[in-house]
Amino acid sequence: MRTSFRPLAAAVLAASLLAAVAPISRADEGMWTLDNLPLKQLKERYGFTPTPEWIEHVQKASVSFGGGSGAFVSPNGLVITNHHVALGQLQKVSTAEHNYVGDGFYARTAADEMKCPDLELRVLESTENVTDRVRAAVDAKASEQAQGEQRRAVRAAIEKESNQKTGLQSRTVELYRGGEYWLYRYKKYTDVRMVMAPEEPTAFFGGDADNFCFPRHDLDFAFFRLYENGQPVHPQFWFRWSLDGPKEGDLAFVSGNPGTTGRQLTLAQYEYLRDDRSPIQIAQQEHRLVALEAYCKRGDEQARRAKDRIRGLTNNLKREHAFLDILRTPSFMEMKRKEEESLKARVAKTPAAATECAGAWDKIAAAERDAARRAKENLYTDFSRGARLMTLAQQIVHYAEEVVKPNGERFQEFRDSNLETERFQMFSPAPNYADVDAAILGAQLKDAVGVLGPAHPTVKLALDGRAPETVAQDLMEKTQVGDVAFRRQLIDGGVKAVEASSDPLIVWVRKLDPQYRVMRKWRENELEGVEAREGGRIARARFALDGKDRAPDATGTLRLSYGKVAGYDELTTRVPWKTTFFGLYDRSADFGNAFPFELTKRVEAARSKLDLSTPLNFVSTDDIIGGNSGSPVLNRNLEYVGLIFDGNAHSYIGNYAYDDAQSRAVSVHSSAIIEALRKIYDMPALADEITGSAKISSR
Amino acid sequence: MRTSFRPLAAAVLAASLLAAVAPISRADEGMWTLDNLPLKQLKERYGFTPTPEWIEHVQKASVSFGGGSGAFVSPNGLVITNHHVALGQLQKVSTAEHNYVGDGFYARTAADEMKCPDLELRVLESTENVTDRVRAAVDAKASEQAQGEQRRAVRAAIEKESNQKTGLQSRTVELYRGGEYWLYRYKKYTDVRMVMAPEEPTAFFGGDADNFCFPRHDLDFAFFRLYENGQPVHPQFWFRWSLDGPKEGDLAFVSGNPGTTGRQLTLAQYEYLRDDRSPIQIAQQEHRLVALEAYCKRGDEQARRAKDRIRGLTNNLKREHAFLDILRTPSFMEMKRKEEESLKARVAKTPAAATECAGAWDKIAAAERDAARRAKENLYTDFSRGARLMTLAQQIVHYAEEVVKPNGERFQEFRDSNLETERFQMFSPAPNYADVDAAILGAQLKDAVGVLGPAHPTVKLALDGRAPETVAQDLMEKTQVGDVAFRRQLIDGGVKAVEASSDPLIVWVRKLDPQYRVMRKWRENELEGVEAREGGRIARARFALDGKDRAPDATGTLRLSYGKVAGYDELTTRVPWKTTFFGLYDRSADFGNAFPFELTKRVEAARSKLDLSTPLNFVSTDDIIGGNSGSPVLNRNLEYVGLIFDGNAHSYIGNYAYDDAQSRAVSVHSSAIIEALRKIYDMPALADEITGSAKISSR
Repeated sequence: MRTSFRPLAAAVLAASLLAAVAPISRADEGMWTLDNLPLKQLKERYGFTPTPEWIEHVQKASVSFGGGSGAFVSPNGLVITNHHVALGQLQKVSTAEHNYVGDGFYARTAADEMKCPDLELRVLESTENVTDRVRAAVDAKASEQAQGEQRRAVRAAIEKESNQKTGLQSRTVELYRGGEYWLYRYKKYTDVRMVMAPEEPTAFFGGDADNFCFPRHDLDFAFFRLYENGQPVHPQFWFRWSLDGPKEGDLAFVSGNPGTTGRQLTLAQYEYLRDDRSPIQIAQQEHRLVALEAYCKRGDEQARRAKDRIRGLTNNLKREHAFLDILRTPSFMEMKRKEEESLKARVAKTPAAATECAGAWDKIAAAERDAARRAKENLYTDFSRGARLMTLAQQIVHYAEEVVKPNGERFQEFRDSNLETERFQMFSPAPNYADVDAAILGAQLKDAVGVLGPAHPTVKLALDGRAPETVAQDLMEKTQVGDVAFRRQLIDGGVKAVEASSDPLIVWVRKLDPQYRVMRKWRENELEGVEAREGGRIARARFALDGKDRAPDATGTLRLSYGKVAGYDELTTRVPWKTTFFGLYDRSADFGNAFPFELTKRVEAARSKLDLSTPLNFVSTDDIIGGNSGSPVLNRNLEYVGLIFDGNAHSYIGNYAYDDAQSRAVSVHSSAIIEALRKIYDMPALADEITGSAKISSR
Repeated sequence: MRTSFRPLAAAVLAASLLAAVAPISRADEGMWTLDNLPLKQLKERYGFTPTPEWIEHVQKASVSFGGGSGAFVSPNGLVITNHHVALGQLQKVSTAEHNYVGDGFYARTAADEMKCPDLELRVLESTENVTDRVRAAVDAKASEQAQGEQRRAVRAAIEKESNQKTGLQSRTVELYRGGEYWLYRYKKYTDVRMVMAPEEPTAFFGGDADNFCFPRHDLDFAFFRLYENGQPVHPQFWFRWSLDGPKEGDLAFVSGNPGTTGRQLTLAQYEYLRDDRSPIQIAQQEHRLVALEAYCKRGDEQARRAKDRIRGLTNNLKREHAFLDILRTPSFMEMKRKEEESLKARVAKTPAAATECAGAWDKIAAAERDAARRAKENLYTDFSRGARLMTLAQQIVHYAEEVVKPNGERFQEFRDSNLETERFQMFSPAPNYADVDAAILGAQLKDAVGVLGPAHPTVKLALDGRAPETVAQDLMEKTQVGDVAFRRQLIDGGVKAVEASSDPLIVWVRKLDPQYRVMRKWRENELEGVEAREGGRIARARFALDGKDRAPDATGTLRLSYGKVAGYDELTTRVPWKTTFFGLYDRSADFGNAFPFELTKRVEAARSKLDLSTPLNFVSTDDIIGGNSGSPVLNRNLEYVGLIFDGNAHSYIGNYAYDDAQSRAVSVHSSAIIEALRKIYDMPALADEITGSAKISSR
């Protein structure tokens, strides 16, 4: 089905954008930071005013999964998130013999709870506005490079100070595209144990076809438990479970960590994305997917090994194609052009604002033109993501080189405040599959030589005249980087050990590193640095005009969205606000129980036991984006009513604008999870713990 | 939900037409006459060649319901059609006490089968090409009016001769927009008894919202039995029931009576529809609907009385809005312009073809310009349809005036060959509701005075200075036309009786009749006459170029479509080829069992008895249009596998072009009907009769 989605995506978006031509409703827009909640809108639209205690509860019962979200749902450190957020860990603990992805994982006793190899969860403890200190440290008259270095240095210093003072993981965050800088402090948890995950065919029922769609019928949940000192943690805040779940029209909050949005970009930035970055990234991912699919055909074990990568790529591609279609829709760009012109006109009329951001748009436009010129080189010479062994090798090489520098001069990921996290990942005992990585790196190298040509310096160094696939296979087969002890040995040995290493992958990464550093420096200082500095000036001009009346673009940090549970119109009929278990069995039967609509034996067997009218999935107008996966949906009493796991087909627009006509967040209904735990998965103790009906002694 | 469908329809169609910009696939196009089946396509695409016996079987087991279709499904004269085709009769036999629409009708014994008041069914017995005779009778050099009269006269003569010779109802049919004339002979049945109809909430589950949509969950079927001489008829041909129904990918035939399509119109005709006729007709129907909705609010009995009219109007409006949206979509008109230019260019290169249709497009264009000028007068002075008492009164007045003329000079409906049918309708014992009719006529008169102004001659005559609603109410309250005996008395009394009648409605119709006749004559001779004559020349030019390689536009006569059972892509996912009973309960539960998604008590009670995975509705690429309602879906062995009842939201385009990307015909699956008869409606004998498991003695 994947090969046919391109024209379809265009069709969806054209329809969605017909609506967009009319002024987009900003009604429930916003992934809000907790320091600046939209009190006026909440009061006016929903008659609700959060108390400080309410806000603290949301903050401290929400759990960050890095690229995903989760929440405490019992006083015993039980955390719920999506199955697809848990997928990486499930894959890492699975083997040819125990396929926890396909079969699910069920710890029916505490002893059965299984430690995750490299999952670090975080809870946001406190935040602090450090904008003035960051700005003061940067000399606006210095070169782009110097400004970039000054900014990195002050952020590193702020983080290190905070970490030393509080012991908490401390990160500075750039909000409002550079308009503000904040310090976020987190409590970290690294002893995370898997409690329960359904079988993938049930969690991801409908597969890639139904991904980003509604009506939907997925049990996309998983449970972990956090431990400290060998004991379950007892969080101060957790969300009580709602047995009834939401009703249509209910106010629904979503807390979580939306990754990135680009709603407040300049036109020049949208054009660069549309014409350069996005098409290249799509082509790269498509080629990687083709390579992995060819690899999968070698056998069942190969298919199992590449499962999570394939799923990640198909998910990304479905989304990225849609994003590009939006950018390529003239009415969309016209809307953005009008927004920008209107802001510029208002700025021009207000001297303070005009001074604040004089020349900002032009400077960003110049940076984007530069980025467009360098796009191919920038995107085709970076092999750091994709093949995991390659990522590890690069981490090792960089770690050794960076940690010996002063804290403020290092790559961001090797600042003192982040070293523990970096080491936790590098020393993960999770298995690595050299053959999967060879397929990925092979595709990347083939792309590079195809686009940049064999004479390009990086390509020459990388291939040394050999075939891309041969180089990739050779490197991956011969490297010892897959061995944790080997990695630890290199890290412990420092720069010397790394420089002396004859491991072919380490040698190869070292060889390419000077060119990698050149590109990264340019990107950080002259593209992202300019975007942040000038974007910040535009943001502050906007604050001067309107106050902080819009939420900042998503940055992977904790946000709160609000909205209502609501169906919508589709074609000429109505999409309901919810589905039921009836729909799961219907859709499976509709497709003759064939992949990706097959029912597992457990689900088939539970049919007569289930109350089929139990709500299964539902939709709300909450403003979410990738990274919100696993977010709790909460009612006004902070009861847990649902679990965000997707957006519908109209929600793609959310990457660039909010629209509540048809765009919806898709959640698993809280009732469905309990019904499934009790009647499909035979896990009454877990259901009791969540619903609070467990005996106190079980704490 | 009705009020919101306009922008939605636009959204649907934009998506559908994005596909249309690419060359539309004509793969399974065509509502074919049985004399010219697409043997080549059937052979090439499906490896199937129908035998003459096969074709005769299709022809004689298919039943025409006038505006709908049906089929014999037992050797005992049992005919199946849609519930919504039966709706008019159900409404006519219902009373305030017995609401067969809302509660359904269930004849569990032969004695319970209830005679329909005015249902005439027909079976096509034979056809004959009479093009040459019709053309020979028309003098191409005569005036438009004379040509129109000559054409009508020869058609009347052909029909009368045939009727006298065979005793069969004989009608001439204009095919290929005037390219051919055929004589169709029918066996008529007027003793039609109702056997079974489900409750409307089940037959029309999802109501106006789900109308023209898929996935769908409707039991839109009804059974009648044909009698002659007080005994069930035993048709020579009937369709055996398929217990399994179709599978995805199966070849599926549809036989029935598609009403009208406009695929082979000229650009000038599309423009007249788009700019003049369609917007006016939509406005008229909307005003009528508003009037009827206001009437319904007076009480339950009023709501019951207006039920079928409201349903007809909402159905029409949903469709007409979509049609207009298509006409207003630039890419659609561009496609039609290209088609026309391409045909003109090919014609120009071929002398024979060029001579055949020289000036034809221009003559049609001139007629359409004239029609555009007269559109308001034409459409706002015709009160003949809508209010049933008005229709009856006009029928009486015209009958009296027309039957005394020579056969060839009468209005078409009063030709000798059709008089029996006309009298059957006029003398229907079905109840008439003067208050419903007053609401409708009031809306029509209000429109007329609003648009044409009070000084317009017809408006002046019609209103005589009084308010539209007053005139309508007065006429309807005081007329005796609702009384069958009164109507019979006038008809028996002939022109004299009609002229002497002081019945206010008869008087009023007589008063308006001269102007009605002027407009009708213009329409028949100078608009439709020109369209048919010049359209016929274009069609024959096309025959000269390509042969008869395209099916004629629909004309309400028997056609055979073919296609395959197939799901389709929607947004970014897949719509299955079928739904199941699971989906019915799901969709009802999704909407909290609220109107129009409510389950009846019978359906709710049957839940535990039903095999919920039984297929309920399904889709196929068959080319259908309004009038195909009730059509049998047949497999290649002529087994009955389904019952056409609708098209999906993408099928609107079918009015003007065929597209198989997403456009689909929607049917009730044969298994669903048996499952419902046995387990919901407790009608095992009927199920046994259909499936052939009934004892022979029951014949």
